[in-house]
Formats: sequence, C-alpha cells, structure tokens
Amino acid sequence: MAYKDEQLNEEKVFKDPVHRYVHVKDRVIWDLIAAPEFQRLRRIKQLGTTNLTFHGAEHSRFNHSLGVYEIVRRILYNFENRPHWNDDERLLCLCAALLHDLGHGPFSHSFEKVFKLDHEHFTQQIIMGDTHIHTILERVSPGFSKKVADVIDKTYEDKLVVSLISSQIDADRMDYLQRDAYFTGVSYGHFDMERILRVMRPIDDQVVIKSSGMHAVEDYIMSRYQMYWQVYFHPVTRSAEVILSKILHRAKYLFETDYTFKLKPMHFISFFKEKVDLADYLKLDESIVSYYFQLWQEEDDEILHDLCERFMNRRLFKYIEFNPNQQMNEWMELYRLFQEAGIDPEYYLVVDSSSDLPYDFYRPGEEEERLPIHLMMPNDELKELSRHSDIVEAISGKKRTDHKLYFPKDLLEELSEDCPAKRRILELLYGEGAGNNVN
Amino acid sequence: MAYKDEQLNEEKVFKDPVHRYVHVKDRVIWDLIAAPEFQRLRRIKQLGTTNLTFHGAEHSRFNHSLGVYEIVRRILYNFENRPHWNDDERLLCLCAALLHDLGHGPFSHSFEKVFKLDHEHFTQQIIMGDTHIHTILERVSPGFSKKVADVIDKTYEDKLVVSLISSQIDADRMDYLQRDAYFTGVSYGHFDMERILRVMRPIDDQVVIKSSGMHAVEDYIMSRYQMYWQVYFHPVTRSAEVILSKILHRAKYLFETDYTFKLKPMHFISFFKEKVDLADYLKLDESIVSYYFQLWQEEDDEILHDLCERFMNRRLFKYIEFNPNQQMNEWMELYRLFQEAGIDPEYYLVVDSSSDLPYDFYRPGEEEERLPIHLMMPNDELKELSRHSDIVEAISGKKRTDHKLYFPKDLLEELSEDCPAKRRILELLYGEGAGNNVN
Amino acid sequence: MAYKDEQLNEEKVFKDPVHRYVHVKDRVIWDLIAAPEFQRLRRIKQLGTTNLTFHGAEHSRFNHSLGVYEIVRRILYNFENRPHWNDDERLLCLCAALLHDLGHGPFSHSFEKVFKLDHEHFTQQIIMGDTHIHTILERVSPGFSKKVADVIDKTYEDKLVVSLISSQIDADRMDYLQRDAYFTGVSYGHFDMERILRVMRPIDDQVVIKSSGMHAVEDYIMSRYQMYWQVYFHPVTRSAEVILSKILHRAKYLFETDYTFKLKPMHFISFFKEKVDLADYLKLDESIVSYYFQLWQEEDDEILHDLCERFMNRRLFKYIEFNPNQQMNEWMELYRLFQEAGIDPEYYLVVDSSSDLPYDFYRPGEEEERLPIHLMMPNDELKELSRHSDIVEAISGKKRTDHKLYFPKDLLEELSEDCPAKRRILELLYGEGAGNNVN
Amino acid sequence: MAYKDEQLNEEKVFKDPVHRYVHVKDRVIWDLIAAPEFQRLRRIKQLGTTNLTFHGAEHSRFNHSLGVYEIVRRILYNFENRPHWNDDERLLCLCAALLHDLGHGPFSHSFEKVFKLDHEHFTQQIIMGDTHIHTILERVSPGFSKKVADVIDKTYEDKLVVSLISSQIDADRMDYLQRDAYFTGVSYGHFDMERILRVMRPIDDQVVIKSSGMHAVEDYIMSRYQMYWQVYFHPVTRSAEVILSKILHRAKYLFETDYTFKLKPMHFISFFKEKVDLADYLKLDESIVSYYFQLWQEEDDEILHDLCERFMNRRLFKYIEFNPNQQMNEWMELYRLFQEAGIDPEYYLVVDSSSDLPYDFYRPGEEEERLPIHLMMPNDELKELSRHSDIVEAISGKKRTDHKLYFPKDLLEELSEDCPAKRRILELLYGEGAGNNVN
Repeated sequence: MAYKDEQLNEEKVFKDPVHRYVHVKDRVIWDLIAAPEFQRLRRIKQLGTTNLTFHGAEHSRFNHSLGVYEIVRRILYNFENRPHWNDDERLLCLCAALLHDLGHGPFSHSFEKVFKLDHEHFTQQIIMGDTHIHTILERVSPGFSKKVADVIDKTYEDKLVVSLISSQIDADRMDYLQRDAYFTGVSYGHFDMERILRVMRPIDDQVVIKSSGMHAVEDYIMSRYQMYWQVYFHPVTRSAEVILSKILHRAKYLFETDYTFKLKPMHFISFFKEKVDLADYLKLDESIVSYYFQLWQEEDDEILHDLCERFMNRRLFKYIEFNPNQQMNEWMELYRLFQEAGIDPEYYLVVDSSSDLPYDFYRPGEEEERLPIHLMMPNDELKELSRHSDIVEAISGKKRTDHKLYFPKDLLEELSEDCPAKRRILELLYGEGAGNNVN
Repeated sequence: MAYKDEQLNEEKVFKDPVHRYVHVKDRVIWDLIAAPEFQRLRRIKQLGTTNLTFHGAEHSRFNHSLGVYEIVRRILYNFENRPHWNDDERLLCLCAALLHDLGHGPFSHSFEKVFKLDHEHFTQQIIMGDTHIHTILERVSPGFSKKVADVIDKTYEDKLVVSLISSQIDADRMDYLQRDAYFTGVSYGHFDMERILRVMRPIDDQVVIKSSGMHAVEDYIMSRYQMYWQVYFHPVTRSAEVILSKILHRAKYLFETDYTFKLKPMHFISFFKEKVDLADYLKLDESIVSYYFQLWQEEDDEILHDLCERFMNRRLFKYIEFNPNQQMNEWMELYRLFQEAGIDPEYYLVVDSSSDLPYDFYRPGEEEERLPIHLMMPNDELKELSRHSDIVEAISGKKRTDHKLYFPKDLLEELSEDCPAKRRILELLYGEGAGNNVN
Repeated sequence: MAYKDEQLNEEKVFKDPVHRYVHVKDRVIWDLIAAPEFQRLRRIKQLGTTNLTFHGAEHSRFNHSLGVYEIVRRILYNFENRPHWNDDERLLCLCAALLHDLGHGPFSHSFEKVFKLDHEHFTQQIIMGDTHIHTILERVSPGFSKKVADVIDKTYEDKLVVSLISSQIDADRMDYLQRDAYFTGVSYGHFDMERILRVMRPIDDQVVIKSSGMHAVEDYIMSRYQMYWQVYFHPVTRSAEVILSKILHRAKYLFETDYTFKLKPMHFISFFKEKVDLADYLKLDESIVSYYFQLWQEEDDEILHDLCERFMNRRLFKYIEFNPNQQMNEWMELYRLFQEAGIDPEYYLVVDSSSDLPYDFYRPGEEEERLPIHLMMPNDELKELSRHSDIVEAISGKKRTDHKLYFPKDLLEELSEDCPAKRRILELLYGEGAGNNVN
Repeated sequence: MAYKDEQLNEEKVFKDPVHRYVHVKDRVIWDLIAAPEFQRLRRIKQLGTTNLTFHGAEHSRFNHSLGVYEIVRRILYNFENRPHWNDDERLLCLCAALLHDLGHGPFSHSFEKVFKLDHEHFTQQIIMGDTHIHTILERVSPGFSKKVADVIDKTYEDKLVVSLISSQIDADRMDYLQRDAYFTGVSYGHFDMERILRVMRPIDDQVVIKSSGMHAVEDYIMSRYQMYWQVYFHPVTRSAEVILSKILHRAKYLFETDYTFKLKPMHFISFFKEKVDLADYLKLDESIVSYYFQLWQEEDDEILHDLCERFMNRRLFKYIEFNPNQQMNEWMELYRLFQEAGIDPEYYLVVDSSSDLPYDFYRPGEEEERLPIHLMMPNDELKELSRHSDIVEAISGKKRTDHKLYFPKDLLEELSEDCPAKRRILELLYGEGAGNNVN
C-alpha cells in the first residue's frame, strides 16, 4: 500500500482535555507526531509568559498542534461527499493543520521582535529543510512538503484548503480559544464548536457558515474578544514580556560591546548576530532559555542579573495607564528623572501597547486583508457576517488599543528620600497622594 | 498590626481551573508565594514524565501547592467555631499546606532513587535553612518555621493539624486527584469534594467524616484507585521514567569513571558525588535537566546519547508483562542474550514494578502505619470506614502489583538477521510468531 | 429565640445542578419552602413550552426560586460588614428572593394575555392573603409580609434591597440564564458568576460593580442576548405558545357562547369570566391544564379538539418570516383566502412578534425606566456600563424585533387541489416554487 | 425509495444536555418520535418521585428514550464494517432503542405493584396494537413491529442485537446513569462512555469489551453502584413512593367498598378493576394522576385526603432503620400501638426494602440469569469481567439490602399526651430520649 494511504492497525487516540480524544489513523500523521522537530513543541509553552498570571496556562504548543489537527479532521469528516470538496486534499489539510506552528520558538513574540525573526519563516524551513518532517512528507509524494508549506504560507492555490487553517474562523483559532480557556480556567472561550462544525460548508474558495449557525459564530467572536482582553493582553503577562524583551536586549547589547559572560552563551550567539540557521533555531527551546536566564542571575552586569532575577522569580514591573501619544511631556520628564535617579529608563521605563480588531471584513488598501466570514442563507446566497449579525456589526472594524507604562515600583520606593527625583517620579506616576491605581 | 495578623487590603485571587479561585487574604501567605523557593516550583512538573503519555499533564507543582493551600483554607473556614478546633492553628495549617511539597526537585522519583535523595529532607532544609521562606516564617514568630516543618514532617504534636496535610483523605490527595484528572483530561478523579469538606469534623487528634458523607468518600477512594492505575502507573509513563533513571545512572557512572563530558556537568556534580547541599539542590530544576540531556545527545558515549535522544524525542522502550519472581530463568537468558547481541542489559532490559494499596487501616508491625479513615455515626461513635462501606471493605488492604519488562524494540529489530541471539530474544519477548501483545 | 433568628440544628442543603448546593440555615426559609403555595411551583415549568423545542427544559419554577434565593444568600455573605450594607435586611432579601415568582401560574405568558391576568398581582396576593406563606412571614414580625411584598413590587423604600431582585443584573436573571442554559444544554448562558458576586458592592441605593469585573458583566450581557434569541424566542417554542393561546381563546369563546363541554371545565370558569380569586388561581397548575387539554381532544368542537391535539402531541404550526407592518396587503389577502378555504384565520393564521432590548440605561419618558448598571472605578467614581464597555455600548438601546407568521402547513396541504384558494395561499406563503424556507 | 431507507433532507438534531446532540437522519425514527404514543413520554418523569429529593430530577422518559437511541446510533456507527456485525439490523436496533420504555406509565414502580401491571407488557401492546407506532413500523416492512417487540422482549433470535438494549452494560443503563446524574446534579454517574463505545466489539451473540477498556467499565459499574444507593434508593424518595402506593391502595379500597367520590375517577376505574386496556393505559399520564390527587385532597375520606395532601405538598413520612426479619416483635407491637392510637397502620406504618446487585455473572438456577460482561483479551480470548478486575470481583454477586420503617412523625407528635400508646411508640421508634436519628 502506498505510504500516503497506509493506516495504523488500530486507530490511536490521545486523551485530550479539550476535544476529549484526538484520533489518528494515518501512518503519515503518526510519524509526523513522532518526529523530533514536532516533539520539540513540548518544550515551548503555548502562551509564553501567561502562566505568570494564570498559573494553569502551562500547556505547550504540542498540545495545541494536536488540537488543530483534530478539529480539521472533524471538519473534513463532515465534508466527505459534499459538493465542492475534493477528498484528495484530506491528507494535505491534516498535515498542514498539525504542522502550522512548527516554527515557533520559545516566547516567540519577544524573540521575534528583539532578534528580528519570523516564526513563519522557520516553519517553512523546517518543512522544506533537512529534517525528519521533510523526509516524512516527501515519502507521501515528491513535492508534497512544498504543498504543505504553501498551505501554511497561504499561497496554496486551493484557497478552500488554506481557509481551514487561516481565516477568521479557522481550526487554529477554534482550538486555541478553547484550549487556553481550559488551561487558564477562565469562563470565556467557550462556544459551541460542535455546532459550528456542523454548519460549515465548503464552497469554491472558502468555508462558509449556514446562516442557522450564526449565533454560534457570534458566540465564537465574542469569546475571541474576551480572551484577547482578559487573557492574551493581560497587563501582568505583558509585564513579564517587557522584562523578557529587555533581558534579550541587554544580553545582545553586552555581547555586542564585548562583555565577558561567565559562561559563553553558545545557544544565543547566532541570535545576537542575527544570523540564525535552522539547526541553531531548533536547539533553542524554553528550557535552554531558562538555563541561561538562571546563569545570568549571577552575572556581574547589574541590569542583566536584576532583570533575570525578576523574570525567574516573578518580581514583575508595576504599571499604570499611559498613552504615549497624548502624554509625551510626562514621558520625557520621566525619562530624564529616571536617568537622574540612576535607573536606566531604556530598561526600566517601558510603554507597551496592545491592540486588537475583533472582526473585520476586507477593506481595500489595508495592510493585511482579512477575509470576511460569510453566511450561507437558505437561498444559497452568501452574506457577509456583519450584515446579518447586529452584535458583530456593532464591533466590526473597531480597533481597540491599550497602552500601559511599566516600571519597577520596588526600585523607586527604595530610592533615598534625599534623591530629588524620587518625589517627582512618584507624583507623575501615581498622581497626588495616590498609589491606589498602581497595579 | 503583628505580621501574623496582617491582611491584604483586598483579598487576592488566583484563577484556578480546578477550584475556580484560590483566595489569599493573609500577608504571610502572599509573601510565601512570592518567595523564589516557591516560584521555583513553577519549573517542576507535578507529574514528571506523565505528559509523554497524557499530553495535557504539563502542570507544575506550583499549581498543586496553591490548590492544597486552598483546600485547607476551605476546610478551616468550615471548622471555625467548631468544638475541638483551635483557630490559632489556622496560619500554621495554611503555611504547611502551601509548603508541603517545597522540597520536590525535577522528576523526584527517579532522582531520589538514583542519587539516594529524599525530597522531604529538602523540604525541611528549605523551611529551616537560610532561605526567603525561612525568613518570612520566622517573622510570624520565632520558632514558627520549625512548627511548619514539624507539621509537614508529621511530628507536630497536634495530630489534628497533621492530618489535614497527611492522611488517607487529606488536602494533598484531594487536590492532586482532581488536578491531575483535569489536566490529563481523564474522566476518573472526580468526586464531590464540596460534600466531603462539609462533612469533615475535627475531633481530638484527627479529622473524621460524618457517616452521611460516606458515599462521597467511597467515590474519592475509587477515584484514587483509578488514577493510580490509569494515570500514575501508566506503562508508557514508566517507560520514560525507566529511560530517565538509566540516563542518570549512566552519567553518574561516566563521571565516576572519569569520562570527559564536552561541557562539565556543573549542576550535576554534587548529585554524582551524593553530597548535595541546599544551594545546589535548589538550582536543579527541569529546565536545567533538559538543558543537559540535550547537550548529552551529542556526547560520544553511545549509551548516554542514545538514552538522552530517546528521552527528549520520546522514542521510548516497549514493554511486556513480566513477573521477575516467576520468570527468573527467562530473565537470566534474556540478560545473557542481550549481552551477546551487544546491547547492554543494564540499560536496555529493565523490569519495573508498581504497586498500590488503595486503602488500608492500621496493621501493627507494618512498615508504615496508615491511619484509617473514621466515620462519625449519628450517635457520635467512630467507625473505621471499611467496616461500614462494602466497597471499601472489598478493596481494603489488597495490594496490587504490576510488573513490566522494558526494552528497545527498535534496536532489537535492527539487529542483523545473522545475529544468533536475535531470534531467540524475539521469541522470548513476543512468544511464537506473536508481537501483537507488545506495546 | 425569636422565630426570625431561629437556625436549623444543622444547615440543610439541596443538591442543585447549577449552584452545586443550595444552603439553608434559617428556620423561616425552611418553613417557606415547605409551604404548599411554594411546593406548588414544582408543578409549573420555568420555561412553559420551551421543552417542546429543547427537550431538557423540563425544570420547574421551584428549581429557579431556590436558585435565586441561593444567589442572594451568597451576595449577602459577601456584603457582611461592608459599608452601606445593613445586615438587618438580610432575612427580608432572602424571603423576597425565594418568593419573587410565587404568583406564576402555568404558561403564564399566554394565560396572562388571554385572561388579562398579571402574575405579579398574584404574588402580592399570596404573600398578603390567607396563605401559609403569609402566616410564616407574619411570624417573623407583624408587617413583615408587607415588606416582602414591597420588595418584590419594587416599591420598598430601600432601593438597594430592591435592586438585588430587580435590576439589569439581579439574582433572578443570573439564575435563570445559567439554569435555563444548563437544562436546555445550550452552550450560551455561561458567565463567571462567582467573579460577578465578588465585585458587587452595595452603595446607597443600588449594587454597583467594581470596574475590574467589567468583562464578566459584558459576558453576562452577551449571554443574556444569546439566550433570548436562541432559547426564549425560539420560533418553535413560540409556535406552541401560539397554539396554546388559541386554545384558551377558543375555550373561552365556547364558554361564552354556551357551548356544552363534555365535562364542565370547573377549574377554568373563573378564568373565562375574568374573575379569578386567589383560591382558584392556586388550584390551576400545569397538570390541571394538561388534564383539560387532553379531555378537550375529545370535544366536538373541531377547532378546540384540533388545537388541543396539536398541543399535546406537538403537531405545531410552521412559520415564515413576516412583517405585518410592511406586508399588510398580503396579510389581508391571506386572511380572506383562509376564510375561503374554510380554515378559520382567527385560529390558524397568527403573527407573533418578539423583541428584546439587551441592555439599556434610563431614557426619560420611556414606558418602563431601566436602571443602568454602574461600574465603580478605582477612584470610587461611578460610570454607566455602556460608557466604559465597547461591546455594551455597541448593543445598548438597540431593540430588535422578530416577526413570524404561523399556520398549519399540514391542513393547507390537505386542501383539495380543487380548492381555488390553495394555490394562491401556498404561493403567498412560500413564494414561487419554494417551500424550502418554511420551517 | 423504500420507506425504510428514506433519509431526511438534512440531518435533524436535538440539543441534548447529556450527549450534546441527538442526531436523526432516518425518516422512520423521525416519524416514531412524532407519534403521539412517543410524545406521551414527555408527561412521565424518568425518576418518578425523585424530584422531591433532588429538585433537578424533573426530566421525562422522552428525554431518556432519545438518549438511548443516540447511544445505540453511536455504537452502530463504530460497528459498521466490523466482522460479526450485520448492518441490516441497524434500523431494528435504533427502533428498539428508541421505543424500549414506551410502555412506562406514571410512577410505574408503584402503579405496577398496586395494580399488578407490567410496563413491559404495555410496551409490547403499543408496538403491536392499533397505534401510530405500529403503523409506522409496519410501513418499514410487514412483521417489522414484531421484530422490534421481540428485541425489547429479549426473545429476538440475534442475541447481539438484544444485548445492545438489555445487558449489564447496555445503552439503556449508560444513558440513565449519566442523565440522572446530570439532572440531579450529583457527582456520581460519570464515566468515560466515549471510551467504552470505542472498545465495544460485536461478536457472535453479544457485545464484548476490549480488555484495554476495562477500567472505564469498572468506573461505569461503580457509578451504577453509587447512583443506586445515593439517588435511586434515597430514603426520602422512597418515603414519597410509600405514600403514593398507599394513596393508590386506599383509592382502590374505597372504590371496591362503594365509596362515593366527589368526581367519579373515570381514568382510574379500569385500574381499580385490574382490567386495563391499552386505550385506558395510554390516557393515564402524570398530569392526570396529579389532577386526581389534587381533587382527592378534598375528599371526605380522611386517609385519602391526608395522604394526597402529603404527596402534593411534600409532607412526607419520616423513617428509621428497621429490619423486619429481625425485629418482628417490635413490628407487631408497633402495629398494635398504632391501632390503639387511632392511626391506621396499614397506611401509616410501612416497611420499605431496597436491594441491589451491582454486578453479577450467571449463576445457574437463579431467578433471572444475568449475562456477564466479557472482556476480549489481546489474544482474542474472552474473560468474564470479575476474573480480571479486582474491584468488580470484590463487589460481584454481593447483594445489599436496606430496610426502612416509614411513619408520620407529625401525626405521632400531635397525639395527646394522654394517649397511652404515644410514649411507647416514640420509645420504640426513637429509642430512649432520642429522636436524633429520625430523618
């Protein structure tokens, strides 16, 4: 039997707290899961620093990747024998679902920003490079790995296939919303996925939703909205991320200025040089990062060791609401005062902004076009979701941004009362006699 | 206000997926949670290698420790104003609950066996040694840390206090059964804790259960039984643990025989020498272990790198049922055949046995006496649980043991067909023409 | 001890699927629950005809009333010792919570419309009249029953007390959303009540919500929105209600026109006469209604027996979207055609409209003023919810109405092909060659 | 297309709180559900008087019947294409599953005992008689209704088919355990049905369980055990049943002794005469019973009106442990004392016994043979469950019986202190100076 059609003797299952069971019958999928590059995802948390806010959120990207695979498997099970659906694309969809996050590294968000990386680029490299994953995919058929890479890259010609993995209501989002809600324990993030799966219909180039399922989709969009603001953008999580970024910045700066580390940071050097090859990239997981950060707690550089100690022991920065666009003067004054007080504002006075667009349809000329969600009406006509749903219409296209200013409250309080800057800093940060609003 | 009575301005809560919320009002508890020695528990998984079987089980001991604290908090809330209960012991109970697992290291089970350690010993050291935890506890009152240590050590004079943390139905077990069930996603592990908490009554030297709550306790004991056999003793998990132990053995052996590691295993040296001081112990968390295991994948020693590669990439040993007591001859033959085939049986042919005693009452002269669970009858008489419950009676004192033989199926299959030992090994392991029963 | 302070020896609990346990410690509450007028609520379904759509929704008002009581109990537990809160009002709040729906009869909505009744009026009568409930309340203190009645009537002077039972985020709504979601099995209706209870703060004349809990409130409002449209206004449920109303109309009409019922409808006579006294009202529960409807299936009057047979056996009307305001001509034509075809349009051609206002703040001059939900900002300032929440702002004050036209599709299809009206009726209802959109 | 193969245009779903969705695609099933005899099950509670103990347990047999159907549907979905399984039996299995409880009347247990009825007999009659159900089944193929009846009667030749509906681990039990747990809200009753369905295998004449699923089956058996003792045999529920039985006895006695009822109890007469035909049987649902019991509250016969008033208003009997086999003398004395005190012991002094056999294998010669549950070992050998499971072995064949004595505590307390029997009755019931143990 051709490898691509090979089935396991007995269906295997993974017990999954979110989808109850993940089912695997295809040999290819089984082999991909066993590949070292995929197993590596066990060592990268799905939500980076979120576990410092929600202690349950310690789940890995391995977890999530299986979940996305399982959702696509269920969608395709419903698609079988439907018009418009070509079941030859089945294995391709399953592989793309399983592997879509393969290129993630530890704390992707911060690492990408500081070292100018792009996890999607590495996903492509792992799939196309000299890896176990690549070998397995090419056994399916020559060129199959490229197809998988293209689906994940959204350049694959069959947009219906692409939309299963990347759209405003794709398997990726449906898994992470539910999974992250489960592990954090929040009560947002629940929606009736079983119903959504039942009302999904493949058409030419996209998956549409039967209009009778509109309310389940509304619920999904509201879940998404709540998860973003309640979990993903939680200010305490962002505090940890701010510190993490500053550690990376500082280490890079020290490396560039020929500082002598007690132990040479081998795993980081190609990152500092911004020349990361695939092998180096694959080696850097969260345990490696944690290893170095712990070593660096004992470095002589005061900023590096202070920041590492904060990160490892969760001694985070505090924050206040702060809009840099409107508060430029305060910002400049604070910056100067921090310098006066001997606290380097480059590392200890940080504005962080988060923003989210809960749902949007295509607006020509925007940076990234977002394909709308279409409802299929009883007469088979398509209707863009926000034209039918009052709730979605209400929030559609409404970008919301949140700005916070982070700083080490403890350091400021430890400043000598003689320090002339201290009083003014506290005044600017907490207002007159306040302090209550500092979190 | 005395530190011991200090309350936070606003009660703080942790969102917890198992208990919904963990509530903290005491400043002391808040400070203990923030201590580095406690934060370190975030880097130690509650269930060691179980996540290689149940991918959701990635939760840390930090998680569980908060849970045990919360359960004790709720128990004590119910105890307030009850006869026999002295509310002055409240803070002591809360601290002991929070800190009871503080001395756990990474993969405790294997590390303890290989390096002859005892996590309880380290719990005592962290509480009594030169640590943040100790400082905080001594601020409560001089000698308070000793009391906390004694409660955890079960030597504290007030046995009622001890029994909250250590008995056959204590807060520790109630938390881990539910928590491990939640994160693995299995359907065992559920019981009506709210009911059990409601029917717990403090008496002189123990907590007893009102007889009207007997069925909830039965349910708890069955949960425990199922979790042990379905989750904790799962043969795949044990396969990973077998490999882990063999890695530690091999590394120690190499160290003792003056092998030159590519990078000196600084963090491990005191372990190899079996002279681990507190500072060394605290430094070794799972990320450090993972760091070394990844390095060791590139060591020259073939056994070490093979085992590490297996562990990191989940290429585990297979297993069959095997009772070493009854199959001594097969065992000796296999041992010899492995040697002939050039596969070191010390590392690659391993019997692992698990056994559990689901519930027992005191039998004088046994190694560890187990205090029975007592029901309080309507007439206030006490009755040992198994005398009242048919189900518990049925399983009481019935020790069950499971033996498995682990081996690398892949290596055996790769042996040349010319190898005279191969055929006989396969025959012994799988029986005539079999192989179906190998897992 | 005064009756009002009397406590049960042991706290009693009711196992409740929604709140886990309902706790009762006050003798007064225990006695009220045991009163026949309260037990009667077991024979009235919370959701009337909804179980014909969602088969799980068979729960009674007894169920819900206990739930509302339990929520208020938990709120007040949190309020203890807070400023603004007078704990002397505790028992009053609990009684009002428990009894707020006491005056509901079977299928209240339809009965009230057809017979011009008002369940709130009967709640007042049961509390103030010659009932067990009244006797119990007066034992608390003379005049206490009046206070309870006033709280439920929203005329009680302490508006803080009133707002616990009757506001846009009161215990009543919080219970029914969760309870109805639980019993129907829908995935809407979940929100983090535990969090909302924690952030509720009593002030002068209302309960406000700490702004940190805003998202939980948003979630609650979205739940409410979804439950209304997905469950409460479900078109199939409304079909059953349409039939029910028409049964009542017909029976009243027959009574008024001196039709001779096979069995004299004793229980209904005072309803037909629109002179219902308390004793008659209390006797009419759902089992009585069901008894008569089953008898009436055997009445000679064709309309009455057909409608009863439909209701009992769930042979409901079908429906299409139909806006009577814009489709007056079609309506008139259909009416005439039905008459021609011998199907009485008074009973068989029915427009039903539902509308909901998911959240609103006070607009002077509107029929019923709705008190807004106020957030308490960190600086103790109050802010109306929709000014702070984008989502709530988006849906605030947006009334949505849904119109449907109901008719017996089966009867129409059974019309002879010779009937000249048939073809035109089908055309008007289903459009050209359609039929797909009929539900 | 033949009626038996007819499929609905679109699959229909029922939202079900237990199984999430019940799916219907076969026209036959759809028609059966719509039949009046099936809709009637909405008016019969699944758990009779249990809602007087667990207020959530108001769900109907309609609910449960859909659930059993759904489970069988899922089992058969897994059986497709398996050896031993003949898919031609599919529709037969689904019909039998749906209809297996069709003959239940209101409060079956008590009605059957008092009026010597057998609901299984009526199930047969409804399926074979002049009913909508029969007509639908015969449309499938002549003689099909007989097959359905035989499957439910366990006389159908293909025992594999029978065992899906009637065995120690059938769809019926799996549904009711979960459903009753859900609606009562108890935490027992949960087991991993999805896993059990996955490990079920059809063989010649039964369904067996792959041995890897043994623990899920153990969990199911323990759930069953707990549900029996915690819910089904709850002494408060039995108190209500005792009263119900006594009402029926009294009404029958009055009828037989020519008592004149205020309203002739038409619906009951054939029951009193023990000549119930199908039409009479179908008319008697819970609402009818409730109607009469309410009327009878106003009857002149004191016993009848007192018992009815107790039942309707939940003024139940109290109870103590009482073993009639060992306490014959007390029993006889109490009987006599009740007579002396003017309280008729036939109605007011009732022993009720419940007993359950949690699991058993076949023992030749026993009244009802119980087919054992068989595990299929990896080598395809069958093994009776209790030989492989320690827990099941422990409870296997252990019949447990519980005896309670019920009586009206209120009436006894109201006896005049002058009544010579009073003191001795109280002494016998509560012991010396006791009373605490009376529930």
